[in-house]
Amino acid sequence: MSGLFITFEGGEGAGKTSALSYIYEVLINKGYDVVQTREPGGIEISEKIREVILNKNHTAMDGRTEALLYAAARRQHLVERVIPALNEGKIVLCDRFVDSSLAYQGYARGLGIDEVFTINQFAIENCMPDATILFELDPKIGLERIAANKGREQNRLDLEKITFHQKVYEAYSMLKKRFPERIHSIDANESQANVQEACLNKVLSFLEDHKK
Amino acid sequence: MSGLFITFEGGEGAGKTSALSYIYEVLINKGYDVVQTREPGGIEISEKIREVILNKNHTAMDGRTEALLYAAARRQHLVERVIPALNEGKIVLCDRFVDSSLAYQGYARGLGIDEVFTINQFAIENCMPDATILFELDPKIGLERIAANKGREQNRLDLEKITFHQKVYEAYSMLKKRFPERIHSIDANESQANVQEACLNKVLSFLEDHKK
Repeated sequence: MSGLFITFEGGEGAGKTSALSYIYEVLINKGYDVVQTREPGGIEISEKIREVILNKNHTAMDGRTEALLYAAARRQHLVERVIPALNEGKIVLCDRFVDSSLAYQGYARGLGIDEVFTINQFAIENCMPDATILFELDPKIGLERIAANKGREQNRLDLEKITFHQKVYEAYSMLKKRFPERIHSIDANESQANVQEACLNKVLSFLEDHKK
Repeated sequence: MSGLFITFEGGEGAGKTSALSYIYEVLINKGYDVVQTREPGGIEISEKIREVILNKNHTAMDGRTEALLYAAARRQHLVERVIPALNEGKIVLCDRFVDSSLAYQGYARGLGIDEVFTINQFAIENCMPDATILFELDPKIGLERIAANKGREQNRLDLEKITFHQKVYEAYSMLKKRFPERIHSIDANESQANVQEACLNKVLSFLEDHKK
């Protein structure tokens, strides 16, 4: 693989999706061959798996079933979209990848980071991201941003979620220590413009390193 | 868990499905509390996953995606049907389980027995069968039985399948050596009546051991 695989990770409201779009535009304008994607990414099989996960009738779904389904959808998206693009030498910018499963399902949902990593290693084989940008944000601020977007006050459900968001935050901190060479964090408490610039500088430095 | 979890394994045409129905009837008549099942077993989530696996449009499905989907369907069937029955002290007779994935996907499809076992261990946690009956049959005879059932001569596709059936046979032999205490084989080259009796005797001996 001669391409460069960069993933964007972080809790809700951290601004990673808008930063990813910004960086995509900048890189395209600079003449780079870039693919912007996120799971399931329009891959039919992955979309069908996602439908099973999100089906509102599936209230009986076990956490491990869900984790296996996410890993299956990830595998197919990787094989059909990410790997072909990397083989063509492209830069692939992916909104969330394996770290999201480790943080959300492995740690916040309590299935175990190592156990969820094991099934994801089966799914991705050795295709880990070359670099990951972690948007580090105080979970309370993330929650406030989400609430502001919804245009309503926090309710009981939002308050319950604080614990969950904090666990996700903790999980990402643990992952950063575990993969210090791959995961690069930026301060997402800053303004959107500052976050986007910090993120762009990281990506440009990855591209410099990749050329060497 | 106070119940008894027995799985039936083997290649195609080995007569395990009819033997399972026979044993179910005998045990019910003897007054045992028995559940007869097979994946996906009418579990809605598992049925939906199976639809994704079997969808004829999904020709791009990767082998690892498929293995993860089978593990997900297994997990849900186990959680919704098998474990509740075992917790009620029932005998659960299940047509195929984890060994089928190890033999078919792990070995015959070449994904690796250990790797497929790893994702299945995530799916089943420690809920391995108490006992497994392996229907050992010369793959050529199995293929002849299938061909006879179809009422037609073997075609190119059937011939290609011989190699695959032989690999499945080899895989089960390997699994028998790996799990000698759990896997008990019977000679499925015999007549249907003899196979059913041999199978029944095995199950009755498991029940005796279970009472101790």
